[in-house]
Amino acid sequence: MDLTSGIVARPSRLADGRELIYYDDADTSLPPERSIDARTLDPRPPTATMRQDVLTGEWVSIAAARQNRAFLPPAELDPLAPQTPTNPSEVPSDYDVAVFENRSPSFGPRIGTEFSLEDLDRIGLGRSLPSIGRCEVVCFSPEHEGSFGSQTESRARTVIEAWADRTAALSALPGIQQVFPFENRGEAIGVTLLHPHGQIYAYPYVTPRTQRLVESIEKFAGSNPGQSLFESILESERASDRVVLSGKHWTAFVPFAARWPVEVHMLPHRHVPDFAATNDEERDELASLYLTLLRGIDKLYDTPTPYIAAWHQAPVNVARDDIRLMLQVTSPRRAESKLKYLAGSEAAMGAWIGDVLPEATAAFIREGISTL
Amino acid sequence: MDLTSGIVARPSRLADGRELIYYDDADTSLPPERSIDARTLDPRPPTATMRQDVLTGEWVSIAAARQNRAFLPPAELDPLAPQTPTNPSEVPSDYDVAVFENRSPSFGPRIGTEFSLEDLDRIGLGRSLPSIGRCEVVCFSPEHEGSFGSQTESRARTVIEAWADRTAALSALPGIQQVFPFENRGEAIGVTLLHPHGQIYAYPYVTPRTQRLVESIEKFAGSNPGQSLFESILESERASDRVVLSGKHWTAFVPFAARWPVEVHMLPHRHVPDFAATNDEERDELASLYLTLLRGIDKLYDTPTPYIAAWHQAPVNVARDDIRLMLQVTSPRRAESKLKYLAGSEAAMGAWIGDVLPEATAAFIREGISTL
Repeated sequence: MDLTSGIVARPSRLADGRELIYYDDADTSLPPERSIDARTLDPRPPTATMRQDVLTGEWVSIAAARQNRAFLPPAELDPLAPQTPTNPSEVPSDYDVAVFENRSPSFGPRIGTEFSLEDLDRIGLGRSLPSIGRCEVVCFSPEHEGSFGSQTESRARTVIEAWADRTAALSALPGIQQVFPFENRGEAIGVTLLHPHGQIYAYPYVTPRTQRLVESIEKFAGSNPGQSLFESILESERASDRVVLSGKHWTAFVPFAARWPVEVHMLPHRHVPDFAATNDEERDELASLYLTLLRGIDKLYDTPTPYIAAWHQAPVNVARDDIRLMLQVTSPRRAESKLKYLAGSEAAMGAWIGDVLPEATAAFIREGISTL
Repeated sequence: MDLTSGIVARPSRLADGRELIYYDDADTSLPPERSIDARTLDPRPPTATMRQDVLTGEWVSIAAARQNRAFLPPAELDPLAPQTPTNPSEVPSDYDVAVFENRSPSFGPRIGTEFSLEDLDRIGLGRSLPSIGRCEVVCFSPEHEGSFGSQTESRARTVIEAWADRTAALSALPGIQQVFPFENRGEAIGVTLLHPHGQIYAYPYVTPRTQRLVESIEKFAGSNPGQSLFESILESERASDRVVLSGKHWTAFVPFAARWPVEVHMLPHRHVPDFAATNDEERDELASLYLTLLRGIDKLYDTPTPYIAAWHQAPVNVARDDIRLMLQVTSPRRAESKLKYLAGSEAAMGAWIGDVLPEATAAFIREGISTL
């Protein structure tokens, strides 16, 4: 499938039936043909169960099959590298960007409309539901090591195209309520594969964080009739001394109430609920700006900075006119060799203590970017 | 001040005016006289500012003074040990249990009713308020190393008495909305002092976690008129195979929807909103049961298990008939040398994936307790 950007999507299947989609760079040097997955694989695991925590109303997916996942495998056993005769990896062919269904997913493989948002919202003792949904792995490169920031601009553009394409596809699956592309980077935050990759979770519920956002939007509208929360945030942050990077279509800033020693949010200037709604011009600029941002963050210390890069998107069925696509990059690193840990107040009470003035964080990150 | 338990509270002050209260065990061998704090100390830091995160409505306290706190000091420089001629620690005299105001607190030192719960609840751009409140350190023992679980039963009883006494005192301070006693244990979760100690935070707001609980209670009452959520939880858990320990007044269990590889909740059988409302008999039994629980958790692996022990209490001014005192012990340890990290889904979206079946966790902890 030719996408407008010159990037080509090539849908395929793994031996156990999982979807695999290759996305070829606009300037790819790969031939169009791809190998078949010749492995013999066990059947996919059954769909996990999620249980309601009555103290919060939240649903906790119990995915015990994940306990034994690979821990920092060497290059010759990299499960995300292209297959070789001695490495029966998850990707049969050489590739630019490859997206496939996670073998031991937290949500799925089952999908379907077995329950509604109203069902999820009720509070009752002992309630379980199937963890329907989809978890996908997004390989940014066939190389063994790296991260989003180490890719070329053409490759970054391909990953953005894949995020947009997968967001549209996953949003159309029955029962999916929210689609979340993210990248975890660094052993310090628990990453178990060095291969440059991210993930996409397609949830059967509106995530707790987004539920809080919906409530905030309602409260904000009550006291600021006619104003959009996201438009107001963008205006207010752009007028602050916390902007770290901006272009024609996007602005990145340390938020007024940052929680982490390194925290950057990025918003598009136009209201778009998710990646699928961005246009080519926005995607082109994002490829360049996002690389600059992540590379600047890697200049803060002598070694690469661990981070979570979370692309918050509007839910599939609610609040799409109010919630704007937003990147949130956070790192617990508070010095060359010190991390911020979530102790009692944050972990148990959700009551956050920031260690750094957000304006100081912004100056620090601008300095990192200026050395590129 | 003689407490009914035979424990004696001896209020005092540190050189910079901070409150210090000694709690002497019922069977103490200490003389009643305590030394004066003869140090010359800098004035206390100004009260930090908290900023509203408009995406969640939550207030983030920015306490930059905490960045340079001591990191694992040796015994001869232990700031929580009794003072010696060469160690100008925070506690002038020998002691059994000592509670004092944190020198670089996340909340306080200022207190006062400068804003209301309604003020906090509004959503607006660029809102700041003073981080009024109080943070206290609770030393469980004069020894350099250990945790709550390594104390004698008499000492454990004294700490419980101190929690009850401080909960009452802190709840009576102007502007305090919630009082939270907790213990962080283990370097793996960021603990920077080996000295057996906990903390008490007195917040100027109802914590985000407790706000969720208030909402859950309202929803539960809507569909289960006349039933108490906590009474229902207790009944349901006591009838399950997730109970790990129980007595006449308390039951400890792995909750139905546990999030962490090790997670135990403990509830009193009678409705009490906080420690201050427990009676002597409940406190006596708790001293014994809580020691058993923590010692059992330390038997799970060859080395002590890092944990957060969080005593959730009802807010000072709301929901006191509905919210019951509850212990939540959580550990990220999922194997001898593996931790669960909060990656993209949990950290960014609040969407939890559990790695272990709660019933299996309960059996594992019961086994640990049985070896005591």
